[in-house]
Amino acid sequence: MDFAGNPRELLRARTHDGVQRGPADVDPESKPGYLGAKAQGEQTLAIRSRRLSQLQELLYANGMSGNGDGRSVLLVIQGMDTSGKGGIMRNVVGAMDPQGVRAAAFKAPTDQERKHHFLWRVRKHLPPRGFVSVFDRSHYEDVLIHRVRELTALPEIAQRYGEIRAFEQELADQGTVIVKVMLHVSRDEQQDRLAERLDRPDKFWKYHPGDVDERAFWDEYMEAYRIAIAETDADHAPWFIVPANHKWYSRIAVQELLIGALESLDLQWPAADFDVTEEKRRLAES
Amino acid sequence: MDFAGNPRELLRARTHDGVQRGPADVDPESKPGYLGAKAQGEQTLAIRSRRLSQLQELLYANGMSGNGDGRSVLLVIQGMDTSGKGGIMRNVVGAMDPQGVRAAAFKAPTDQERKHHFLWRVRKHLPPRGFVSVFDRSHYEDVLIHRVRELTALPEIAQRYGEIRAFEQELADQGTVIVKVMLHVSRDEQQDRLAERLDRPDKFWKYHPGDVDERAFWDEYMEAYRIAIAETDADHAPWFIVPANHKWYSRIAVQELLIGALESLDLQWPAADFDVTEEKRRLAES
Repeated sequence: MDFAGNPRELLRARTHDGVQRGPADVDPESKPGYLGAKAQGEQTLAIRSRRLSQLQELLYANGMSGNGDGRSVLLVIQGMDTSGKGGIMRNVVGAMDPQGVRAAAFKAPTDQERKHHFLWRVRKHLPPRGFVSVFDRSHYEDVLIHRVRELTALPEIAQRYGEIRAFEQELADQGTVIVKVMLHVSRDEQQDRLAERLDRPDKFWKYHPGDVDERAFWDEYMEAYRIAIAETDADHAPWFIVPANHKWYSRIAVQELLIGALESLDLQWPAADFDVTEEKRRLAES
Repeated sequence: MDFAGNPRELLRARTHDGVQRGPADVDPESKPGYLGAKAQGEQTLAIRSRRLSQLQELLYANGMSGNGDGRSVLLVIQGMDTSGKGGIMRNVVGAMDPQGVRAAAFKAPTDQERKHHFLWRVRKHLPPRGFVSVFDRSHYEDVLIHRVRELTALPEIAQRYGEIRAFEQELADQGTVIVKVMLHVSRDEQQDRLAERLDRPDKFWKYHPGDVDERAFWDEYMEAYRIAIAETDADHAPWFIVPANHKWYSRIAVQELLIGALESLDLQWPAADFDVTEEKRRLAES
């Protein structure tokens, strides 16, 4: 790979000497650890897709096999509108086998979802053993937009951080490797990207007038991210702040975070749970 | 594309002059309509992946937009073990954006699923508007293995064909385009492919001793397929018998069937449901 240094360390919100960083500490224009330019970055994405895909097959094989390791991976993607969440889905997640991947997008909750605890709808999309689940937005909306737009009172928001901590601890204890990413785009870059949607009829469907309204609360969102990250960053559920003004960079960065998560499982091909010689004989006679 | 003739016509179980074909009428070694060899086929797959991906984005855009067309696609993949269902998922379905694709694998039903009507578990995975759902096995197992292994009495099997017809009619009426594929591998080719799984430790997880037992019922399976196809082939829910001894061929064939299904919707980019000029002004001021 073309990274100088380990993206898991370079992008981690909490530095290895324990400093808790927030969005304000990370330049959206930066490309931590990557020395190449865009063309090289796109090549890196293609080359490393093969590695990602191999590792994911290994995870799936272990999940499917009675003799395998029952691990799973959860990738949480958060970010402001236009930060590139969809591009991560298409270009990074899309390189893995759809059989072993569950993608879920969490939009404004439905009436039914509102009647339940905020973690209820999220639990339905957790990865079974051997699977990678990817969340486009997540339970963090319930402490981000809810905090900024005062949809929930502060004491309850405070309680939710604790509930999220307990929830993610439970997942980790069950063998799920968690990777949480904030795609960090700048306010100006967002304006450019929204303007592009308004210039192109094939992008109109991605534009919502409400997106402009939210821009008035930019600083409040950044503060809500800072707090949410600080409250829930843990070694078993780490937060990564990924600069996202350069889409190609954020893609290879998230790709490496996924690869790193899968490699950390140190999986092997599951052993046969049958007698190979005997099966060869039976097959030959069949 | 490199096909001579339309795969939707060449591979359709019911010919355009109304002859209902079954697996016995299709040579698993054949490559209907494709003139090139393997290397060219792999190139075709890569090139046509872009077209497939564009069409799927158009479907998704329509599904997401309030002004869009609320259509969806259901691809059903059936076939004997080793017929290449997994490869279709990885190589054909995998080219589409995971955000708009729902892949579901139907294995032996769980205890809970057994307590319900056989269509119950299938309904949960139908495509929402704008989505492509892909079934790796499906409700057809309930008239295939159930018929062959006598898991269900014949009068009830007979009733199920009718229930499937009604079910698929209902889907079509709701705007779902249905494509049903039988990947048709030969008995000898299956033996080779199972043998390969037994030769490679990285393939052990795909091998199940029960696969050999099923080989004894090959002819009964082909007959069950013939009947199921004849009973449920309809213009709004067509069956295609895709020769699958050459994996590269079956992949580009299914890819073209999917492309054809999406093209049949004749979708356009959804119109803006907001005032573009006004939004440009608001955005510039934000």
